[in-house]
Amino acid sequence: MGRVTERRRVLRVRDGAVGHRSDTLVAEEPLEIRLNGKPLAITMRTPGDDFALAAGFLVSEGVLGAAEELASIVYCAGATDDGSNTYNVVDVSLAPGVPVPDITLERNVYTTSSCGLCGKASLDAVETTTRWPLSDSPEVGLDPEVLAVLPDRLRAAQRVFDRTGGLHAAALFTPDGELLDVREDVGRHNAVDKLVGRALQQGLLPLSGSVLLVSGRASFELAQKAVMAGIPVLAAVSAPSSLAVDLAVRTGMTLVGFLRGTSMNVYAGEHRVLLETTTAGA
Amino acid sequence: MGRVTERRRVLRVRDGAVGHRSDTLVAEEPLEIRLNGKPLAITMRTPGDDFALAAGFLVSEGVLGAAEELASIVYCAGATDDGSNTYNVVDVSLAPGVPVPDITLERNVYTTSSCGLCGKASLDAVETTTRWPLSDSPEVGLDPEVLAVLPDRLRAAQRVFDRTGGLHAAALFTPDGELLDVREDVGRHNAVDKLVGRALQQGLLPLSGSVLLVSGRASFELAQKAVMAGIPVLAAVSAPSSLAVDLAVRTGMTLVGFLRGTSMNVYAGEHRVLLETTTAGA
Repeated sequence: MGRVTERRRVLRVRDGAVGHRSDTLVAEEPLEIRLNGKPLAITMRTPGDDFALAAGFLVSEGVLGAAEELASIVYCAGATDDGSNTYNVVDVSLAPGVPVPDITLERNVYTTSSCGLCGKASLDAVETTTRWPLSDSPEVGLDPEVLAVLPDRLRAAQRVFDRTGGLHAAALFTPDGELLDVREDVGRHNAVDKLVGRALQQGLLPLSGSVLLVSGRASFELAQKAVMAGIPVLAAVSAPSSLAVDLAVRTGMTLVGFLRGTSMNVYAGEHRVLLETTTAGA
Repeated sequence: MGRVTERRRVLRVRDGAVGHRSDTLVAEEPLEIRLNGKPLAITMRTPGDDFALAAGFLVSEGVLGAAEELASIVYCAGATDDGSNTYNVVDVSLAPGVPVPDITLERNVYTTSSCGLCGKASLDAVETTTRWPLSDSPEVGLDPEVLAVLPDRLRAAQRVFDRTGGLHAAALFTPDGELLDVREDVGRHNAVDKLVGRALQQGLLPLSGSVLLVSGRASFELAQKAVMAGIPVLAAVSAPSSLAVDLAVRTGMTLVGFLRGTSMNVYAGEHRVLLETTTAGA
């Protein structure tokens, strides 16, 4: 359990030179998340922080919102051929009185009963499920010069990336640029769930005074996770999708993309970005 | 339908200069895949090639293996407020006699009845589901110099990437480096499903004489999709995960990672790589 990397023998080709060496890879294993004993979802993840991952996943799904709603999280006893625990199945028990959702999902939260599935339905589902409107008080103000240094701070804090190149990272910062937490995973949605789950366990939800930075792109799913955790600012090193931007606009979240050096694009919620320069057409 | 990109107004910050402009984003919308009328899965995808995406998804799940097994794929009639078709729900009908899988899944193929879920169970599931062992005949031989040019050919063939930066790409090549097909999507698993689905529709499965190149990392899921389509070589521009390598070793697939310029790592199946230089320790 908790193996973040694994070693494998590899044939390395470099400009015509060929040789075998040992290489460090990011570990990937399935994790089954059970809710009150019933299988809910399986995700391919990097082992470690599994309880936080499960808790954060349930925040994203609208099941959990506070540490008190969580009775326990345990690894299921193993049932491999040799009887050992694989540490790949966790069971989350909700506290008495917490509603158990209808467990029929493959991402049930996005579905509608009709045939008219569309982006708008996805946005509606988040809006009706979220517990916290993104009305940060006092309002978060973002200095572009502070935003600009966040990716470097994220990379400095990443422990595994440099060795494997296979991990996505997600980090929480204060608006002043102080790193609060960073998590890594082979799946970027898992990295965010691990962050959010730890915050839940520490009684920190909603994360209304914080900035979420992701190492890659900003998809709808990541924007949804930010909204569900009450995070008012999502920043991504790479591009956002159309639906991520639409969700940010709808919920009042600030969405920053292509955050590289002193350049960035603000796709939504620009009222939180503190601009000294007067705005002009470009 | 089929909107690959969308335009949004964005606040652009560049080295202190600030201004509004219009920006091109990759489109993201949900797609619900139904099988014989029953909801099977929802994926967030870039609209376009939806029938191929649905067919390829079902190849990956072991449901489809040949065009004859497919009776029809249609967009469900719409049920939005104004009665129009959203083109976000497709229904796949199997030909008479084709077994319909037990539809209870969230990725049912990975699950086991016991609590002992582990990487080995995931590998076992692929091995028992795949229709084609990867015994290519005649055997595919890969010249490293040919492999080295594939990423450039992929980028040259990408139509949308340069404008949005938000798309993953997947391409099929012959072992001689000829581009057979390229697909793009906001989700890299969707890009591969679109490739495989088109190949199924064209009667080209198994893809035993071809090389799959993906623009990002090689996860277990992508390796699984390659195996399920009978593709003997998976090459990735970035890092593979441990479980992707394990699957390649188990099934006899060649897995190349960090394919950049004339450098690459061969993680499995190196017998297909034609080396003129004698191997030496590095």
